[in-house]
Amino acid sequence: MVILGIDPGLAIVGYGLINYDNVKMKLIDYGAILTPAGMKIPERLDIIYDSMTELIKKYKPDAIAFEELFFAKNVKTAIAVAQARGAAVTAAYKQTKELYEYTPLQIKQAMTGYGRADKNQIQQMVKLLLGLKEIPKPDDAADAVAVAMTHAQSLHFGQDFRM
Amino acid sequence: MVILGIDPGLAIVGYGLINYDNVKMKLIDYGAILTPAGMKIPERLDIIYDSMTELIKKYKPDAIAFEELFFAKNVKTAIAVAQARGAAVTAAYKQTKELYEYTPLQIKQAMTGYGRADKNQIQQMVKLLLGLKEIPKPDDAADAVAVAMTHAQSLHFGQDFRM
Repeated sequence: MVILGIDPGLAIVGYGLINYDNVKMKLIDYGAILTPAGMKIPERLDIIYDSMTELIKKYKPDAIAFEELFFAKNVKTAIAVAQARGAAVTAAYKQTKELYEYTPLQIKQAMTGYGRADKNQIQQMVKLLLGLKEIPKPDDAADAVAVAMTHAQSLHFGQDFRM
Repeated sequence: MVILGIDPGLAIVGYGLINYDNVKMKLIDYGAILTPAGMKIPERLDIIYDSMTELIKKYKPDAIAFEELFFAKNVKTAIAVAQARGAAVTAAYKQTKELYEYTPLQIKQAMTGYGRADKNQIQQMVKLLLGLKEIPKPDDAADAVAVAMTHAQSLHFGQDFRM
């Protein structure tokens, strides 16, 4: 099955696609949807919505896994990112009902077995487990690949984190 | 011109439509898009997106004015509402580029001339200025009408609060 992982954001939406055959995971593609900082918010949301739609139509994933938003500090940033996530989730739902979400803690635990792992440790595991020569760039794409891998592991353990 | 005011939310999106001819404001319609609390978030966002699209196609507003999100306290609520607002703004942008936004403070000042006015004072002004027998219900619809009226006033004063 094809799993699309999404690391939501306003300026950058990371995405990562893996194939998972119940035993092995294989990287298909990864990248980022970018929206310019100077652009008005509605247009940026529109770019995210349309790019998500294109991405899903192109790769026809069996499931899409989103990183859950979790902000303790800046409410203003949280609102901007949440608006962008709303556009991305809406676009995704129009293409498939197979939507899942994982918290940063779940992703850390799935990738390293350790809830307090740092970004670099997770990225090293992405590289190692997928047999890559390099860590996917930018960071948001590597994070998105980790979300897709977390979903694969969750399936393996028969868990259901449907959004 | 027809102005659509939107009070965004996840459980309830208030809307209010007025006609403004540069002198007088007249209420056209008001109401609320509701999404059930037990329903999954992506489906609720989808209802908001589709209902917004229908509403705009039906009334063909010349401008849409959104209330700006402003949360000081609960980040979790802010994220939920912001996601819903993202779905609503994305739907709106697909229909028109004439999108505006006003803070709660701007709405209070436009409606009552007083930045610390309470909800009831604003609703009384909606009733008074539009010559209504009753305050529009629910509260979210009355708030949305106030947003539309704030945009009309803003046009009157030649201001530009384009989103």
